[in-house]
Amino acid sequence: MGSLGLVTPQSMHFSEPLPLRSGARLADYQLTYETYGALNAERSNAVLVCHALNASHHVAGIDVAGRQGWWDNLVGPGKPLDTDRFFVIGVNNPGSCFGSTGPMHPNPATGRPYGADFPVITVEDWVDAQSRLVERLGIAQLAAVIGGSLGGMQALAWTLRYPDRVRHCIGVATAPNLSAENIAFNEIARRAIITDPDFHGGHFYAHGVLPRRGLTIARMIGHVTYLSDDVMGTKFGRRLRSGALSFGYDVDFEIESYLRHQGDKFSDYFDANTYLLITRALDYFDPAAEHGGDLARTFAAVKARYLLVSFTTDWRFSPARSRELVKALVTNRHHVSYAEIDAPHGHDAFLLDDARYHGVLRTCFDRIASAFASP
Amino acid sequence: MGSLGLVTPQSMHFSEPLPLRSGARLADYQLTYETYGALNAERSNAVLVCHALNASHHVAGIDVAGRQGWWDNLVGPGKPLDTDRFFVIGVNNPGSCFGSTGPMHPNPATGRPYGADFPVITVEDWVDAQSRLVERLGIAQLAAVIGGSLGGMQALAWTLRYPDRVRHCIGVATAPNLSAENIAFNEIARRAIITDPDFHGGHFYAHGVLPRRGLTIARMIGHVTYLSDDVMGTKFGRRLRSGALSFGYDVDFEIESYLRHQGDKFSDYFDANTYLLITRALDYFDPAAEHGGDLARTFAAVKARYLLVSFTTDWRFSPARSRELVKALVTNRHHVSYAEIDAPHGHDAFLLDDARYHGVLRTCFDRIASAFASP
Repeated sequence: MGSLGLVTPQSMHFSEPLPLRSGARLADYQLTYETYGALNAERSNAVLVCHALNASHHVAGIDVAGRQGWWDNLVGPGKPLDTDRFFVIGVNNPGSCFGSTGPMHPNPATGRPYGADFPVITVEDWVDAQSRLVERLGIAQLAAVIGGSLGGMQALAWTLRYPDRVRHCIGVATAPNLSAENIAFNEIARRAIITDPDFHGGHFYAHGVLPRRGLTIARMIGHVTYLSDDVMGTKFGRRLRSGALSFGYDVDFEIESYLRHQGDKFSDYFDANTYLLITRALDYFDPAAEHGGDLARTFAAVKARYLLVSFTTDWRFSPARSRELVKALVTNRHHVSYAEIDAPHGHDAFLLDDARYHGVLRTCFDRIASAFASP
Repeated sequence: MGSLGLVTPQSMHFSEPLPLRSGARLADYQLTYETYGALNAERSNAVLVCHALNASHHVAGIDVAGRQGWWDNLVGPGKPLDTDRFFVIGVNNPGSCFGSTGPMHPNPATGRPYGADFPVITVEDWVDAQSRLVERLGIAQLAAVIGGSLGGMQALAWTLRYPDRVRHCIGVATAPNLSAENIAFNEIARRAIITDPDFHGGHFYAHGVLPRRGLTIARMIGHVTYLSDDVMGTKFGRRLRSGALSFGYDVDFEIESYLRHQGDKFSDYFDANTYLLITRALDYFDPAAEHGGDLARTFAAVKARYLLVSFTTDWRFSPARSRELVKALVTNRHHVSYAEIDAPHGHDAFLLDDARYHGVLRTCFDRIASAFASP
């Protein structure tokens, strides 16, 4: 299996406003994206990869700053999502902070950064933005949409919103909506950011400061919930950093040191308004809401074939949530495969290179590829 | 079953310094406590109730402000811990903020509030302070020590530290130490408090402010971890407060409203330095550490009879942690009973009136009472 080597992001501008679920419109925007592999003559081998909270268009390969793509273990020549056979698209969602139009960019209405005035955007809005990009790339129908966590929600939304434009949906460690507990963790993270005095109601750019305290707390909460109790026990346990208790409130345990480091690092590069916006998109995703909460009715008219994958120790997007989706699809006699992977890594498992997990994805993509000639 | 009616706290002063595990000493201190029922002639019917993070000496009855004790459903005339038969003692631990000497009290060395200079105190230190109080009350041996969560850790520590002075140990929803995940949540709560600009390094009293933002975040995190995903789903689910999404970051979901309310309420009355101190006592409790982590060796020489109770949906102090204790006691052929209660309420279950749970405690206290005459 090889690496894609150096990859270069591209940018596409959209002057037609994007109508949003909130009723607002995104006036004028651009999307940053990367593609890997070649589109075949039939334009039938395109796979869209949707990102979750803390990721971007940079899915695979090495960017100009030397950073490896976030799903590089999955996507590349000879890898489960094989770029020798597929044309893979990674796109940064609007509202994010990695290139596409977001809160730190100028609001055309005022000329100043959007900040807190950037409209609240939803999973469905992202899918609409992605569909315009896919269309402009000349792709009438995607071979597959794949995503993990929030990315999986986008993959599900594609099949509901554009049933004729996607043949396969691969949702990893995802859910039909967030539970109260998940919303609670998001809310705590948002409160930590919003109540940070350096947040300035979301207009901190103008004050030359960053709400680092709040972002750090938000990231620490996120980290704990992405891991399992088991893996934290194995990785850190009760190990002390210096071998003895300090009888104070600085770092005693290695887990404290790890979390502080993760929080600090994150607060250097992640945008606070983007954090609010993306957690809200997670909270709001609930396609069954307009069907009286009936998931089977929600998925009645879809046309894609589904693969759902969950991980036994994932308590944020538990296997039970994937099984709800499987049940809704089976009720409708749709095509669905489901793999529940016994992995210790909690929600983070969807980003890791587990042999059984990647084996399932490889088999799935092999089957998808068998339907078309190599490019 | 009756109520104890109005109860009045008492106070006891200790001029002999309390040596602490850290090497520091608590110079001169007082303990606030309440007692219910009457000590029998043999002084053999005393039960000590140890409190957890957010509680106090006010275990049962109604105080002068009209507040019900935190374990009033368990303690009172005719209740499972029957004050017609037992002499029950509730004591506020030093370092807490409900009457006993704590960070908001004057440091005799400076005349100003201790604030951040209040020494870090441990479960073992609390037990030493409690044992002095019990001694002064003329009780050579307790019939039982009972506590839930952090209170259960104190009950365990009593049997290790004063094996001849306690006949029964009842530990509910407790653990032999905290897991890395638990320490992580405590650390996030502490960072939220310490990085609040109004914390002023723990000396906020002198600035006339309270670190409300940090305390609010800390309490919100606590609340989510005390409940189970199930009970949050049942109690709140995805219900909206106003029936429609706001497409903003104010309260949309009922769970958000609940958490904000709990956080705000808590930040009005709870001391920030106490929060740091009590979460650190939780982190530091690990009696097996000085026995190479061997829990069986740790509990080799104890003399008490044990009852341990856990709750199936408690993910903060899970049944598996209680079973570790049971195994260590059984290995040593000590007396131990264990009840795993199938309850949906998570860690909070230890404070609730569940028929099976209270039935187990009633049976246990009936057996204990059968050994002595009523007072």
